[in-house]
Amino acid sequence: MSSKVAVIMGSDSDFQTVLPAIKKLKDFGIEYTVKIISAHRSPDLATEFAKSASEKGYKVIIAAAGKAAHLAGFLAANTVLPVIGLPIKSSTMDGLDSLLSTVQMPSGIPVATVAINGAENAAILAAEILAVSDEQIAQELVDMKKQMRAAIDSKNEKIVTDLLENSL
Amino acid sequence: MSSKVAVIMGSDSDFQTVLPAIKKLKDFGIEYTVKIISAHRSPDLATEFAKSASEKGYKVIIAAAGKAAHLAGFLAANTVLPVIGLPIKSSTMDGLDSLLSTVQMPSGIPVATVAINGAENAAILAAEILAVSDEQIAQELVDMKKQMRAAIDSKNEKIVTDLLENSL
Amino acid sequence: MSSKVAVIMGSDSDFQTVLPAIKKLKDFGIEYTVKIISAHRSPDLATEFAKSASEKGYKVIIAAAGKAAHLAGFLAANTVLPVIGLPIKSSTMDGLDSLLSTVQMPSGIPVATVAINGAENAAILAAEILAVSDEQIAQELVDMKKQMRAAIDSKNEKIVTDLLENSL
Amino acid sequence: MSSKVAVIMGSDSDFQTVLPAIKKLKDFGIEYTVKIISAHRSPDLATEFAKSASEKGYKVIIAAAGKAAHLAGFLAANTVLPVIGLPIKSSTMDGLDSLLSTVQMPSGIPVATVAINGAENAAILAAEILAVSDEQIAQELVDMKKQMRAAIDSKNEKIVTDLLENSL
Amino acid sequence: MSSKVAVIMGSDSDFQTVLPAIKKLKDFGIEYTVKIISAHRSPDLATEFAKSASEKGYKVIIAAAGKAAHLAGFLAANTVLPVIGLPIKSSTMDGLDSLLSTVQMPSGIPVATVAINGAENAAILAAEILAVSDEQIAQELVDMKKQMRAAIDSKNEKIVTDLLENSL
Amino acid sequence: MSSKVAVIMGSDSDFQTVLPAIKKLKDFGIEYTVKIISAHRSPDLATEFAKSASEKGYKVIIAAAGKAAHLAGFLAANTVLPVIGLPIKSSTMDGLDSLLSTVQMPSGIPVATVAINGAENAAILAAEILAVSDEQIAQELVDMKKQMRAAIDSKNEKIVTDLLENSL
Amino acid sequence: MSSKVAVIMGSDSDFQTVLPAIKKLKDFGIEYTVKIISAHRSPDLATEFAKSASEKGYKVIIAAAGKAAHLAGFLAANTVLPVIGLPIKSSTMDGLDSLLSTVQMPSGIPVATVAINGAENAAILAAEILAVSDEQIAQELVDMKKQMRAAIDSKNEKIVTDLLENSL
Amino acid sequence: MSSKVAVIMGSDSDFQTVLPAIKKLKDFGIEYTVKIISAHRSPDLATEFAKSASEKGYKVIIAAAGKAAHLAGFLAANTVLPVIGLPIKSSTMDGLDSLLSTVQMPSGIPVATVAINGAENAAILAAEILAVSDEQIAQELVDMKKQMRAAIDSKNEKIVTDLLENSL
Repeated sequence: MSSKVAVIMGSDSDFQTVLPAIKKLKDFGIEYTVKIISAHRSPDLATEFAKSASEKGYKVIIAAAGKAAHLAGFLAANTVLPVIGLPIKSSTMDGLDSLLSTVQMPSGIPVATVAINGAENAAILAAEILAVSDEQIAQELVDMKKQMRAAIDSKNEKIVTDLLENSL
Repeated sequence: MSSKVAVIMGSDSDFQTVLPAIKKLKDFGIEYTVKIISAHRSPDLATEFAKSASEKGYKVIIAAAGKAAHLAGFLAANTVLPVIGLPIKSSTMDGLDSLLSTVQMPSGIPVATVAINGAENAAILAAEILAVSDEQIAQELVDMKKQMRAAIDSKNEKIVTDLLENSL
Repeated sequence: MSSKVAVIMGSDSDFQTVLPAIKKLKDFGIEYTVKIISAHRSPDLATEFAKSASEKGYKVIIAAAGKAAHLAGFLAANTVLPVIGLPIKSSTMDGLDSLLSTVQMPSGIPVATVAINGAENAAILAAEILAVSDEQIAQELVDMKKQMRAAIDSKNEKIVTDLLENSL
Repeated sequence: MSSKVAVIMGSDSDFQTVLPAIKKLKDFGIEYTVKIISAHRSPDLATEFAKSASEKGYKVIIAAAGKAAHLAGFLAANTVLPVIGLPIKSSTMDGLDSLLSTVQMPSGIPVATVAINGAENAAILAAEILAVSDEQIAQELVDMKKQMRAAIDSKNEKIVTDLLENSL
Repeated sequence: MSSKVAVIMGSDSDFQTVLPAIKKLKDFGIEYTVKIISAHRSPDLATEFAKSASEKGYKVIIAAAGKAAHLAGFLAANTVLPVIGLPIKSSTMDGLDSLLSTVQMPSGIPVATVAINGAENAAILAAEILAVSDEQIAQELVDMKKQMRAAIDSKNEKIVTDLLENSL
Repeated sequence: MSSKVAVIMGSDSDFQTVLPAIKKLKDFGIEYTVKIISAHRSPDLATEFAKSASEKGYKVIIAAAGKAAHLAGFLAANTVLPVIGLPIKSSTMDGLDSLLSTVQMPSGIPVATVAINGAENAAILAAEILAVSDEQIAQELVDMKKQMRAAIDSKNEKIVTDLLENSL
Repeated sequence: MSSKVAVIMGSDSDFQTVLPAIKKLKDFGIEYTVKIISAHRSPDLATEFAKSASEKGYKVIIAAAGKAAHLAGFLAANTVLPVIGLPIKSSTMDGLDSLLSTVQMPSGIPVATVAINGAENAAILAAEILAVSDEQIAQELVDMKKQMRAAIDSKNEKIVTDLLENSL
Repeated sequence: MSSKVAVIMGSDSDFQTVLPAIKKLKDFGIEYTVKIISAHRSPDLATEFAKSASEKGYKVIIAAAGKAAHLAGFLAANTVLPVIGLPIKSSTMDGLDSLLSTVQMPSGIPVATVAINGAENAAILAAEILAVSDEQIAQELVDMKKQMRAAIDSKNEKIVTDLLENSL
């Protein structure tokens, strides 16, 4: 069976920041492929990948890049698959350059942008998109929401009390 | 048949900015419903809508709001449907407040954010998400991409020459 | 006797940043309750809490959150108690996202926003609000102002001289 | 009976921007006084006003100013009454200077900051603060919230349909 | 003889903003070609153009685009000709998005970025680059510098006096 | 008698923005000279002016420029006279570029920066600097402060009442 | 003999950042006094100091503060001495809040603002202001400029060669 | 043979940040000269250097500076050689001040600006400019592009697999 989600990053230096997306997809049991493709250093590779992504069976693309982050928009220009843009914070500008380069796409070519360094959310959004036509993934998402609530209830029962006791 | 896309805006004053999204959905032949729901002035309505959106047959939600734009995140907190956030530029801060309030979601609850005032792209992204399991919409998107390219070719043949002749 | 101030934070990871607010309330002798409630991961809990806050005897709510910080606005949408928004600086955007998401509320639903990571000021503002109808707290605030002045006088008498001697 | 809310603006050129606050206070039936006091051009007046505000019967101060907006902080330094800061957008910097000058107060002296040009919210926040010990105002606020919800319901019934019919 | 400078713009709506660059090239007597090529709506055209630009005789490329302005970087990824990026201010973000998307290129693929809407400077920079191996253009640039100085001298002799007389 | 203040602007297009500085100097009875000198288009003129400014009898320089506003810093590099930088807002970036280019000077070469488009304050600051050794100007400044206070008192007596009557 | 320059800081936590200003004044042989005065925690002290500064013999005031940095403007409101504003970078906002709060003063009350954390420049600017009527300080400044130039010449003769040899 | 590229930095403290540019020029076999020239501390040196740069055989200038980074513009004002501006991030403002001061040049005097701290790209851009009339350097650039692509292919074959194996 082919992978459903392609996780593309502009550089292997982004790997640790992107890793939570990969782990989350694995948790959901969603097939994924990870590739390093730079819009600027390997434009042909980016074009080929994006043009053939749909027929290779990919359903959603996650594209992570920093600075003048063109990767997500570049891929979106060459496919009609939904492309999720994950702006990576680099060493200057606090991530603002990556965010604006990813989200401010001109009319005609959207990129579904998530928060700066928001790798986990990129994976959850991919899951939500797949869940539109996949009830099993939809159920995984419903369960995840319940667990998030349960974690908060549990913290209110115990952790807050402990934190206060240790701090005051 | 139920609507596939819900277009929610925080205020009727956003209507003209959101209108290109509605027109684009209509062009694609995608069923849609338009509602005014404020996360802050009608929180119960927002909760009810989001919680029941999936069972009512909606597949994607577009949420448009300005300033401290909580609407998309609020809806996303109450559904596992993909929520597209459309930040609306208001009279101060040049849209930066709307963008950051929409896109910088904490881990667990993604919002698929498009450009400030990027209504058309919100609709195209909705179409791309539906197209993952709807070949007809996928074909519409492929056709749209061809038309965008053709429009550019046509401009290079004629319009550029005219513009130059009239300007130099 | 019921608590007068509810200190709500979006995540237990914000605890250390919020702690000065809790300590200050304790110093003032104001009853408080600390809870972890996420607008996004526990929206029902947030709604329930805010809707019942007034009848449970709370007079003021302090809401601390980061990034697309919707917590304060979310609570304010569901209560007429004054809600103090405390924007928390997260790892990107230097706190600007948290600040704008908290303060730029649309007309109808104010949030009383204090400085980024300004936990102590959140507590003092809560005290000032309670002091409108509580002369004892008003006196505490008057005393605090006198102590702040006295601390500066004391520094000018001694510390400045010492600092200069050690540095030049 | 003395006024409960003082509405202070740094310049009469801010009057039109501040006016919605005055109208809203009038709607609530809350006594108010309007004054022009500049922290920079009339510092003694500002000091005198703030120091005597409490004994003159004021309960809350709204302070509106633009650019390097020191007015709210200046007043807060001289009173323990809650001071609501209303940042006014001026002709440069899109209001960011006014916002940061108002909200980023150092520890010890909070200012309850509302949105840039958010005059109406300044008044509502003042009402919320008074409502902590005034049930009639609390009821006004509850009613206002109901009306906001009703206005949205009414728009969904009629206006959205009209807007769509006229636009598509 | 082939054109030396290619002036590429992402949309014909940018034409008026780019026009000063075209006029300046004409003033210098430098051959140029104007094309509309969108990195996002016509990626293949952009790739083909950039890959063949050198052998077609172009020496410098000026690329003008707004918002998430990928055009200059896209072309630079496919040629070793110097690419001058001209960020165009669009209706939101005051040009900051265009600037950061153009200038913050990752290592390996530079874009020679000029000021937001700085069309004339894009042409002058193109002339400076050509002048490295073209003494006639170098002389044109030296003359232009002399004229700029002469214009200022002339203004100091006459215009300042007139302006002062008319204004005081 | 030689002029005491030189008012230098980078372009005659800045004249209207700089005019309030000239008028204020005239009000104070301070001798001034107005020149157009561009750091970039007439660098030699700028160097010559700055190097000879002190021996020509100037005591203070006001330098107004926009965008990458180097003028004030350029002059300061060539004189030990105090240089007041007046950042001019241009058509992009809301004045932030002019402000940062003027104020963020490296160690060794200060520029006394006033607000964006704050021409009147540039003149008042020049007067304050001259007043350090000129009692007559010092008295003018004391009088100006009294007038500012009187203007506010007058507004509180009459204008506020009128504004309220006309607006409510 | 009385001090000529008052160095005022809002908090003793700013001491290390302000220290280069003090050292530079000492180098110039200019008499100075250092005080801790907070506009917000000791407003009366600030008022008293500023009102009496001129008659106590001060000629220039340096005011250092961070966040919503009102200190320089506060002092300037109460004196006609030139006030140099030194914005201090605090833990959020990268110094932008301090800078805007200091420099964006309304018409009538200028603050001579230097770079964020630019303590040395604050002292040099104070010296330049005093030098308008003090030839000895003027000569010190001329000498400092020569030394800065000499230091650069010396680096070009030796240090650059060493750096290159050690790095390549 | 004379050097083709001058690498000028405003301070030796920028050396480590500029070093990748020097290394890259060395890799390309391009002759270069490194100098420390401050626009503000050594303006005459900067003027002399820029005015004589062309006749000394330089073809391109790289100018690196931080904060109110005037160096590149200063040099460009005194030469018609292409000047590449390299904005250096300093300790405040995250590089935004350096970027805007470098790129936002007024009409007539362009600076070819690269990314904040983008030293390597400054060198590659210099090579691209020289390559317009130097086929050997053009071939070096073509080879570099191939190596960048090959490096990515190699990473996809091996490194991604390793990273995933070690992380999941």
